[in-house]
Amino acid sequence: MVMILYGDKALNVYRAIQPLFEAQVDVEEELKLVTVSLKAGQFRLPSYKAKQPFGLIPFLEDGDFTVFESRAIARYLAEKYEGQNTPLLGKTLKERATINQWAESEAQNFHPAIAPMVRELFLAPFEKRPVNEEVMETGMNKLDKVLDVYEVHLAKGTKYMAGDNFSMADLFHTVYMNWMKSRWPQLLEKRPHLSAWIHDITTRPAFLRCLQLDWENASPIE
Amino acid sequence: MVMILYGDKALNVYRAIQPLFEAQVDVEEELKLVTVSLKAGQFRLPSYKAKQPFGLIPFLEDGDFTVFESRAIARYLAEKYEGQNTPLLGKTLKERATINQWAESEAQNFHPAIAPMVRELFLAPFEKRPVNEEVMETGMNKLDKVLDVYEVHLAKGTKYMAGDNFSMADLFHTVYMNWMKSRWPQLLEKRPHLSAWIHDITTRPAFLRCLQLDWENASPIE
Repeated sequence: MVMILYGDKALNVYRAIQPLFEAQVDVEEELKLVTVSLKAGQFRLPSYKAKQPFGLIPFLEDGDFTVFESRAIARYLAEKYEGQNTPLLGKTLKERATINQWAESEAQNFHPAIAPMVRELFLAPFEKRPVNEEVMETGMNKLDKVLDVYEVHLAKGTKYMAGDNFSMADLFHTVYMNWMKSRWPQLLEKRPHLSAWIHDITTRPAFLRCLQLDWENASPIE
Repeated sequence: MVMILYGDKALNVYRAIQPLFEAQVDVEEELKLVTVSLKAGQFRLPSYKAKQPFGLIPFLEDGDFTVFESRAIARYLAEKYEGQNTPLLGKTLKERATINQWAESEAQNFHPAIAPMVRELFLAPFEKRPVNEEVMETGMNKLDKVLDVYEVHLAKGTKYMAGDNFSMADLFHTVYMNWMKSRWPQLLEKRPHLSAWIHDITTRPAFLRCLQLDWENASPIE
């Protein structure tokens, strides 16, 4: 049964789908892409909101089973293909708890700091208005504090957030860390351990393949 | 081995600990409370930040294992006592995915809408200033949309967010829904299915016992 991913070129979509590439699933064979164009506002289509009631992407159909929210999709795919290549969810109760701790740090500390800035920098030119500097300043203050904690944590000697193995905790961070790395390289310069970790996670073949998903030639949503 | 919970009378602390009561663990015997006073700013103590680097509560010690972030603590406790009473995490891949979907909706849709308002209404009197009405208006607009989606979802006939059984998806929502119910009962009046669900989850004995944790007589952090 071919799965269907509804999405577009968008950061959260990459997060959702990376576990498929980590598990070396043949994505060309097993996944069909359907474009919900952000620029055209197709997330507001009634046909799409009947699937995803918040009108957000991504959305996954696997036969008659459906799931939304990028982190929930990622967990579903990681568990569905568990045992194939990279284990992402931890093998013991304590491993899973440490992975969840840093996964929640992404959702509750890192993401709320950076996401409003990413959104503002995307929306301002789209809405033909200047960037709201207050949004940027508030976000950057929060982000700096989070990155300081991450630097201290990674300086303790583990290669990844939850230990010496790549896990869902790293995967959840990857796409926004990648965006941050190109937009504000200076945030990495003064934090060598953070910088090494970001370089590692953002150059993984499985992540790079997410960026290459061919949304241009995907079917449009009806 | 007695576990130690660092916290205070705070919403996130109740979320973290509810799985212990759901599993009918003898909390008086198996859990020691250590107060990190929010009012006294004890979350800034170096001794506490050495444990929880973001300076946030709650924080759990279980022997030499530690975990922070309320949702990660809740998952750890649910899994540690899995099989005792209420199953919270789902039995099959698909059950777990649906639970994660609505758990992520709490973290990404509901919480970001309501939490800034809760924070504002707590901080304004503490800082002896008027409530910032813009924060409240933005939050209420977001919250209304989330609650509309929840009403439609629950009107489809399931008793709980992820089906007919209480799960982690409901538990994650409980404490802020309980706060909302007393502060803004009008938000429930026009949404009968949401209202019935909130009544159900906020009157569970396991939740009510969280509210009764005796922080007054807990040990203070050193």
